[in-house]
Amino acid sequence: MTDKTLLLGLIGHGIAKSRTPGMQEAEGLAQGIPTTYRIIDTGEAPAKDWALKDLLDSARTLGFNGLNITHPHKQEVLEFLDEVDERAAKIGAVNTVVIRDGKFYGYNTDVTGFGRGLEQGLPDAKMDNVVQVGAGGAGNAVAHSVIAAGAKNLFVADLDPQRAQQLAENVTASSPVEAGTFTVTGVDMADVEKYIVEADGVINATPVGMAQLPGTAFDTSILKPSQWVSDVIYLPLETQLLREAKEIGCSVIDGSGMAVGQALDAFKCFTGRDASAERMRETFIAQGE
Amino acid sequence: MTDKTLLLGLIGHGIAKSRTPGMQEAEGLAQGIPTTYRIIDTGEAPAKDWALKDLLDSARTLGFNGLNITHPHKQEVLEFLDEVDERAAKIGAVNTVVIRDGKFYGYNTDVTGFGRGLEQGLPDAKMDNVVQVGAGGAGNAVAHSVIAAGAKNLFVADLDPQRAQQLAENVTASSPVEAGTFTVTGVDMADVEKYIVEADGVINATPVGMAQLPGTAFDTSILKPSQWVSDVIYLPLETQLLREAKEIGCSVIDGSGMAVGQALDAFKCFTGRDASAERMRETFIAQGE
Repeated sequence: MTDKTLLLGLIGHGIAKSRTPGMQEAEGLAQGIPTTYRIIDTGEAPAKDWALKDLLDSARTLGFNGLNITHPHKQEVLEFLDEVDERAAKIGAVNTVVIRDGKFYGYNTDVTGFGRGLEQGLPDAKMDNVVQVGAGGAGNAVAHSVIAAGAKNLFVADLDPQRAQQLAENVTASSPVEAGTFTVTGVDMADVEKYIVEADGVINATPVGMAQLPGTAFDTSILKPSQWVSDVIYLPLETQLLREAKEIGCSVIDGSGMAVGQALDAFKCFTGRDASAERMRETFIAQGE
Repeated sequence: MTDKTLLLGLIGHGIAKSRTPGMQEAEGLAQGIPTTYRIIDTGEAPAKDWALKDLLDSARTLGFNGLNITHPHKQEVLEFLDEVDERAAKIGAVNTVVIRDGKFYGYNTDVTGFGRGLEQGLPDAKMDNVVQVGAGGAGNAVAHSVIAAGAKNLFVADLDPQRAQQLAENVTASSPVEAGTFTVTGVDMADVEKYIVEADGVINATPVGMAQLPGTAFDTSILKPSQWVSDVIYLPLETQLLREAKEIGCSVIDGSGMAVGQALDAFKCFTGRDASAERMRETFIAQGE
């Protein structure tokens, strides 16, 4: 019995409202593996006073099968792992740790997340030229994912052109995708419209459009029906950007895409089984209702 | 979702084959609470090198809802608890820890286990005079449970009369049952038959009758159909003692009684809900097949 249940957790800051526990628990149960997924918030007591290494050791000793790792521990965790997947090692960040036979194995499913979301939502999306608006917070994972999903030329715009430039250089240097087969270019937000006009698709990776920060990060009137538009925001699921893009006739992928995508791949790491994308997306959305 | 799953564990030595995880996981799931119950064996790596206090702290930090505690930690655990149930405090042993709002609450369901088993199996059993054969290992918990279940006079026999006497004194001094309403007397194994002849029921708490130690601890030909007979051994479930007692016409309770009884009460502590005795017994037995 006991070897047929799954014990998982998420280690990070400010994760109380994460929808990942719900997705993994529901998916495990639906596949006949009762699953317990715990939030271990290192921004709050009692985990606040623990070193990451001690949390990992405790999880191993108490019988956890795996962990997701999020901000601010994705880089720090690397030194405690026994083996790291080649792609995660190249990027220098791990968000999924499998615990097996007392050893820690690291993966990065953030990077495959966008591709998985795209594969589900827009399998035929053209990826020659993609614009990403926003180089902060989630920007690094988004850019890596877009390149991993097959984008040829990615233009990253930010109000701080230096930050955009820095991100472009980081991603170019650490992407697991073969060097020379893609470009990432940092651009000034002031010039973003000229890149959007030429793009196959546009991704919003800024917080503009969240419930508490309404609006759009750029003027949507320049969009064309042939373009696809994606948003990393999932509160609300339909942002002003996506609503206006739809009205113009663009294909859209909402913020559930990446979140569900990383969870699909993490489930595969934890169990060796394929998760149902549709079921995970339903669970993801249901948690916001 | 996450607050609707249950995370439990068992801390002790040599517990790899315990059937408690299976019982709790199956019962939780049957009640719509996906449950993960982990074995934390302090006789084996990695838990071997951990202090009990660190295991408890880890369990709290990683989101466990409760723990069962077994040999050799039942006394030691007391000092780390925030609150201890009156009965457990009196006995000086805790086998169930509930973790709630960051605090540890201790209970003892070993002591109620025999009574619960009796309640299920032989609700009308007469308890004026009971003989317990064997004062080692499980003896203390068995004697406490028999008194807690309402026995008036308990005679504990052992090949080592001093051990029987010591156990009788301990139980008399620390039973949560009102002093003066019961007696526990240590007797010499050489005299046990004269006590059995006068008894309402007899309990085997020796290892005699286990698969690797066949036989019976006393001559069963002295049993009468009016008596009940119980065995703490559950491998096999039908010991030679119980088989012979049944042939004579005695009512019998097999070794699943106490094991299931403690688990029923522990489930109640962990969840506040009543477990199904029948379902838990079925799961218990199925694990031996």
